[in-house]
Amino acid sequence: MIDPGPLALLQAPNICIVGSLKKDGSPSTNPCWVSTDGEYLLLNSSYGRAWPKNLLRDARVACTVINAENMYEYATFWGFVEESTFEGAEDHIHELAKKYMGLDRYPFLLPGEQRIIFKVKPVKVFHLESEGEPPERDDL
Amino acid sequence: MIDPGPLALLQAPNICIVGSLKKDGSPSTNPCWVSTDGEYLLLNSSYGRAWPKNLLRDARVACTVINAENMYEYATFWGFVEESTFEGAEDHIHELAKKYMGLDRYPFLLPGEQRIIFKVKPVKVFHLESEGEPPERDDL
Repeated sequence: MIDPGPLALLQAPNICIVGSLKKDGSPSTNPCWVSTDGEYLLLNSSYGRAWPKNLLRDARVACTVINAENMYEYATFWGFVEESTFEGAEDHIHELAKKYMGLDRYPFLLPGEQRIIFKVKPVKVFHLESEGEPPERDDL
Repeated sequence: MIDPGPLALLQAPNICIVGSLKKDGSPSTNPCWVSTDGEYLLLNSSYGRAWPKNLLRDARVACTVINAENMYEYATFWGFVEESTFEGAEDHIHELAKKYMGLDRYPFLLPGEQRIIFKVKPVKVFHLESEGEPPERDDL
């Protein structure tokens, strides 16, 4: 299970920056919404976009979540996509719309769009909470 | 030169999430401070830490900068480290302390610490500015 500090960052409406690998092995960073079941990070995207393609090709992933109310608190999760699934992905994006926008339904679904969930298993987690100290200070 | 929209994000005191490659080729994401000369992203870290080591080993990098005042505006820069240098790196961290903390001097320098600047040349830039639309929406 994820420790209380990083867990709270995932539970609050903070943006998650997903680090993935492009086809040529170079890194990409992309912001997205995230939720958690306490064990996994649950990312949601649209099938066919670039970073979901990256994760379907190579499951290795890093996610940094910064506290929107204190930019000097953040957590980074290094791990891998244990499962990617279409099942429940549309319900999940509605849940995320509730979390991030206070809406009952996600208002931006496109015709024919297929949502996809990535269940990210964190293998290593780093959490830094400080008051104005630069976030890189104790980087691992 | 960097376009006005992404440039403004770099000039404001927004956190930059650096995507780099670990020794085994897996991605890492790490927050840091950033400035720009209009052409390069200038990152500053401490020699010997993990993500600077990553960049010294493999110059390929992605940087995402999110507007701290509107999480739905961000820019991602994909590119490479064109130069890494110790020269001027201590002055640069003081400038960053001014930008981010309003201080004349960076208060967290450690004894024996060697600061390092990474000059990141963006090859591709994506900028999204929206009002509540999820940031992944138009991802490239």
